[in-house]
Amino acid sequence: MNETLAPWRAILSRALHRNRSLANARYFQLATINLQGKPTNRTVVFRGFFNGSNQLQIITDSRSEKINHIKNNSASEICWYFPKTREQFRITGNLTIIDETHDNQTPRLTVWQNLSDSAKQQFTWPHPGQPLTNNQQDFCQEIPSNNQPLSNFILLLFNPQNVEHLELRGNPHQRTLYYLDDEKNWIVEAVNP
Amino acid sequence: MNETLAPWRAILSRALHRNRSLANARYFQLATINLQGKPTNRTVVFRGFFNGSNQLQIITDSRSEKINHIKNNSASEICWYFPKTREQFRITGNLTIIDETHDNQTPRLTVWQNLSDSAKQQFTWPHPGQPLTNNQQDFCQEIPSNNQPLSNFILLLFNPQNVEHLELRGNPHQRTLYYLDDEKNWIVEAVNP
Repeated sequence: MNETLAPWRAILSRALHRNRSLANARYFQLATINLQGKPTNRTVVFRGFFNGSNQLQIITDSRSEKINHIKNNSASEICWYFPKTREQFRITGNLTIIDETHDNQTPRLTVWQNLSDSAKQQFTWPHPGQPLTNNQQDFCQEIPSNNQPLSNFILLLFNPQNVEHLELRGNPHQRTLYYLDDEKNWIVEAVNP
Repeated sequence: MNETLAPWRAILSRALHRNRSLANARYFQLATINLQGKPTNRTVVFRGFFNGSNQLQIITDSRSEKINHIKNNSASEICWYFPKTREQFRITGNLTIIDETHDNQTPRLTVWQNLSDSAKQQFTWPHPGQPLTNNQQDFCQEIPSNNQPLSNFILLLFNPQNVEHLELRGNPHQRTLYYLDDEKNWIVEAVNP
């Protein structure tokens, strides 16, 4: 990647480090728009940055509803709250779907290989959101191969365009915007909280 | 209110109770659509249910961007993750704005009176999101009266239409949908996680 690291990256890394004792500090909420034009919102797990870039990695199942939302409208906003340091990042951007047909399978394979066995196994479960299967054995499949992601395993790359950082510790709060100018340089601006 | 309590209310109350040691268990993420049709997402504080109803109370500032989003499109989705019990509620619904011109000021006044002094004081701060004021004294106004909400203080009522409850403890996970039928009765359905 030729991209320079955005200035908010160091701030976000610091938040991740300071909140590392909390498992849920690696969870954030991802908002997308459904086919009826309405907002949807769910918790997802941060799977690290895509190699040397500012893009956040998320995984999902091709059978999940959000894939249809994203195919229709790739706009998204992440809301990421860090409980220990009481700070929030709102990250506006677009999602790219890396499925099994994508030209470059390396990032998808790398993220798959870093998943725990139980996370891999979830991709063998029956169709999410459908009426509950009567056969509980359907949830007890073998653990999939480490070398071949299941076909319904999808890597999402979230490409940030704006970041708002809000710090609730201290009075008044602190609020900082990061955005790209016309030459794709990151601008930093302090605003009223 | 004539509304019957929805069946998900007891489940949500149990989650609030079991996570009560965590301040941030009363925070959730609220997604709305901006004027460009894009999703936006931020953390807000749960301010209890509106008297005897299923409607969730949220507060905001009339100068915040989300007020313009909501005036344009009242559709919203709450994502509420409870870290201790590892469960998530996704609540789809619509927002109603109760501002100082609303006929019934009782709920707005009640929520105002329950705010801490520092929460009340935030409504005296300079315009949120504008370039940071040079005069830090602008953040040191007196604490507003308990009996008269400031004019920019807004109560939002979130009226749920669908709830998805996901429990991550245990394997497989458990996922339950709650939705209203044509006669406004709540239906409960177990689906695949």
